Amino acid sequence: MKNKFKEIPGSIIVPTGFLASGVFCDIKKLGTGKGSNKGAKRDLALIVSETPATVAGMFTTNQVCAAPVKVCVERMKKGVAQVVVINSGNANACTGKQGMADAREMVAFTEKALGLSAGRALVGSTGRIGVTMPMDNVRAGIVEAVIELGYSAVHADRAAEAIMTSDSRPKQIAIEFLLGGKKVRIGGICKGAGMIQPGMSATGARPAALPHGGLHATMLAFITTDAAVGAKVLQAALNEAVAHSFNRITVDGDMSTNDTVLVLANGLAGNKKFKVQSSEFKVFQSALNHVCLELAKKIVRDGEGVHRVVTVRVNGAKTIQDADAAARAVANSALVKTSWHGGDPNWGRIIDAIGYSSAKVVEEKIDIGYAALGSKKILWSLKRGQPTKATFKELCAAVAPKEFELHINLNLGQANAVMYAADLTEEYVDFNKGDVTDASSLGG
Amino acid sequence: MKNKFKEIPGSIIVPTGFLASGVFCDIKKLGTGKGSNKGAKRDLALIVSETPATVAGMFTTNQVCAAPVKVCVERMKKGVAQVVVINSGNANACTGKQGMADAREMVAFTEKALGLSAGRALVGSTGRIGVTMPMDNVRAGIVEAVIELGYSAVHADRAAEAIMTSDSRPKQIAIEFLLGGKKVRIGGICKGAGMIQPGMSATGARPAALPHGGLHATMLAFITTDAAVGAKVLQAALNEAVAHSFNRITVDGDMSTNDTVLVLANGLAGNKKFKVQSSEFKVFQSALNHVCLELAKKIVRDGEGVHRVVTVRVNGAKTIQDADAAARAVANSALVKTSWHGGDPNWGRIIDAIGYSSAKVVEEKIDIGYAALGSKKILWSLKRGQPTKATFKELCAAVAPKEFELHINLNLGQANAVMYAADLTEEYVDFNKGDVTDASSLGG
Repeated sequence: MKNKFKEIPGSIIVPTGFLASGVFCDIKKLGTGKGSNKGAKRDLALIVSETPATVAGMFTTNQVCAAPVKVCVERMKKGVAQVVVINSGNANACTGKQGMADAREMVAFTEKALGLSAGRALVGSTGRIGVTMPMDNVRAGIVEAVIELGYSAVHADRAAEAIMTSDSRPKQIAIEFLLGGKKVRIGGICKGAGMIQPGMSATGARPAALPHGGLHATMLAFITTDAAVGAKVLQAALNEAVAHSFNRITVDGDMSTNDTVLVLANGLAGNKKFKVQSSEFKVFQSALNHVCLELAKKIVRDGEGVHRVVTVRVNGAKTIQDADAAARAVANSALVKTSWHGGDPNWGRIIDAIGYSSAKVVEEKIDIGYAALGSKKILWSLKRGQPTKATFKELCAAVAPKEFELHINLNLGQANAVMYAADLTEEYVDFNKGDVTDASSLGG
Repeated sequence: MKNKFKEIPGSIIVPTGFLASGVFCDIKKLGTGKGSNKGAKRDLALIVSETPATVAGMFTTNQVCAAPVKVCVERMKKGVAQVVVINSGNANACTGKQGMADAREMVAFTEKALGLSAGRALVGSTGRIGVTMPMDNVRAGIVEAVIELGYSAVHADRAAEAIMTSDSRPKQIAIEFLLGGKKVRIGGICKGAGMIQPGMSATGARPAALPHGGLHATMLAFITTDAAVGAKVLQAALNEAVAHSFNRITVDGDMSTNDTVLVLANGLAGNKKFKVQSSEFKVFQSALNHVCLELAKKIVRDGEGVHRVVTVRVNGAKTIQDADAAARAVANSALVKTSWHGGDPNWGRIIDAIGYSSAKVVEEKIDIGYAALGSKKILWSLKRGQPTKATFKELCAAVAPKEFELHINLNLGQANAVMYAADLTEEYVDFNKGDVTDASSLGG
């Protein structure tokens, strides 16, 4: 897929007819007030399409699910939307009836502020859990965000900043490609740094096959496109794209109450609508896959305290469930993750994690090796359960880069799985042990 | 159960007719040689009964299972043993046919050195994975350990030290109680500090109901008793005791290739043998439960980098599997564990972990609270999914002690589960990121 899509700056405003803004409205009630807006991190974003767009979404399968997620799931049924309002600083999770009322007011207030008909707005939130939304600030923020809306990359930058929590940098992408003879664009922004192991579905209900993973700080992704795509076709493409991207990443194995991915397709590129399995669908799918995977990888790379990113590839499993279970066991093992941090090619911990996973494995068949990112040249450290002649120095060199690939072959079947995983560092622990002098951290 | 059993010093040599020793034989091949034995940590232990004993065992359900475990599982069938030889420094795991040959030689050599008939020895190993045993050193160690055998607490201390790896201190217990009118004793030693979330069964095979948890550095426990107990009765009692102790602890969620619990009962106390469900059985079960639970808790308290130990109690689940899943999700959540480290009463992370567990839960029914260790007085932070009036200061005080109890009520049924869990600290990460200048750490 490499270099197949030219990346261009501007993310969500690149597709024709999309506007964005990001403002500071003091969601965390730091009390710095409006006067100090300039210095504070923005915390409320709007993404608006000039015309009604088809919409698709994927949501956390956590049974403890935030109010904005519930509101989005309800509104997905129509398959049409025109604006997304997003705040950071407060997840509006575990906030009961007040939380639902607040989420509903956020969409209704946004619709009114933009002069849209009811039901056109969606909402995303991330931040503290268990604290009700500061609705005065939110309303003021929405009003300001509407005023600030614009079509330039600066506006997209502001939106990307406004959705950040513990992220150290905004995460954006946009690509342009030909679809049925027309130039089409997809842009996206996302956030997420800890509580990252999404397991999302289109309804928030947990399919049997979906791994129970574990996000906090939440991952949010908002994708815009000017392609003309029917809502059902768009949902099918998003399901597939998320299955191979956001649902394949883990920072700390924790799945958030708020994980949300939304795609708005306004059709202004003027291509002809297409069916699932058409050649146009394949082109669109491939482009959406690229956008989702690149955004997902940005989340892992910017994970809390993350020093190394490892692509865990499990091949040769009996079933896809087995491949997934083995990959997740390795990707979430505290001992494997600390060894990655230490630059230690410790296959003992890897085979141990494979062995205790729910995957069917046979010790004497397991291969473990390393490759440079994107390389097919594997340095095997273990073949059929036994150490190879690779030297410790060679293996250390293989795990020294900031990113590398871990190859595991179970040699029992044909099923494969991949996970994009992070190491576990002292910085992660230090960051997340929190500051108990700050009562506002109670829920989050 | 508190104070029901008087604890006495001496651990494994307290029951009549048991001897122990612990020596240094340089299993890690540090090259310090025999001359420097005095200063180095002991690494080979023997536990010997004067007379043949009935035996019961529980072993890792990791599919990647070490040679000594396989040898013990084979030998369990006879239900009789008289000696256990244990080494630290090398797990004899992932060592192929040579590893099996070495484990078999360890038991055979021990039997000969003690003049016992074949089949009377068992073996346990812990340490590096993937390195073959230094059998010259092992044989020399066994010879010396036989010479050093003794009946005093000093001998038990040496054995307890010899089985340690990253443990900071030896772990021992002994109790005395009346069984059918006779004074009976149970003693035990154990080790384990990281790679701790045992999931053991009597055969090493994984029952459907057994949670897939995750041990490294391994947990090993060796229990002696002078009670007269038939092998099947002893196994039944051990199954029950382990289910409520060693299989309920987690330090880092990783399950080792070597986890082993063995009990030897030599009958020298002279009590009459008893059946399962007899009143004597209940007394014995209760005593064995106490020994196993106290040993298991010592492992968590001495876990790598552990500052806080939390007893996670889940009540009101629909099924035991649900209760277990919710307790393990909380006990193994990186975000919950770092918040414990920080002394942060962060119920948001706890309810998040409950929500993504495989347990059936309803957000609006979940209670979360804290109690002092052993206290029934619960300070609720969340009732029916909503924050209580408990102040942040009160909640911080509740999670400030080195040990406390976390109470979770799902309010959906009658099933309960408990996990003894540890926090996640910078020290754990620092310790386990390893020293890659040391090639000997390759497998372990």
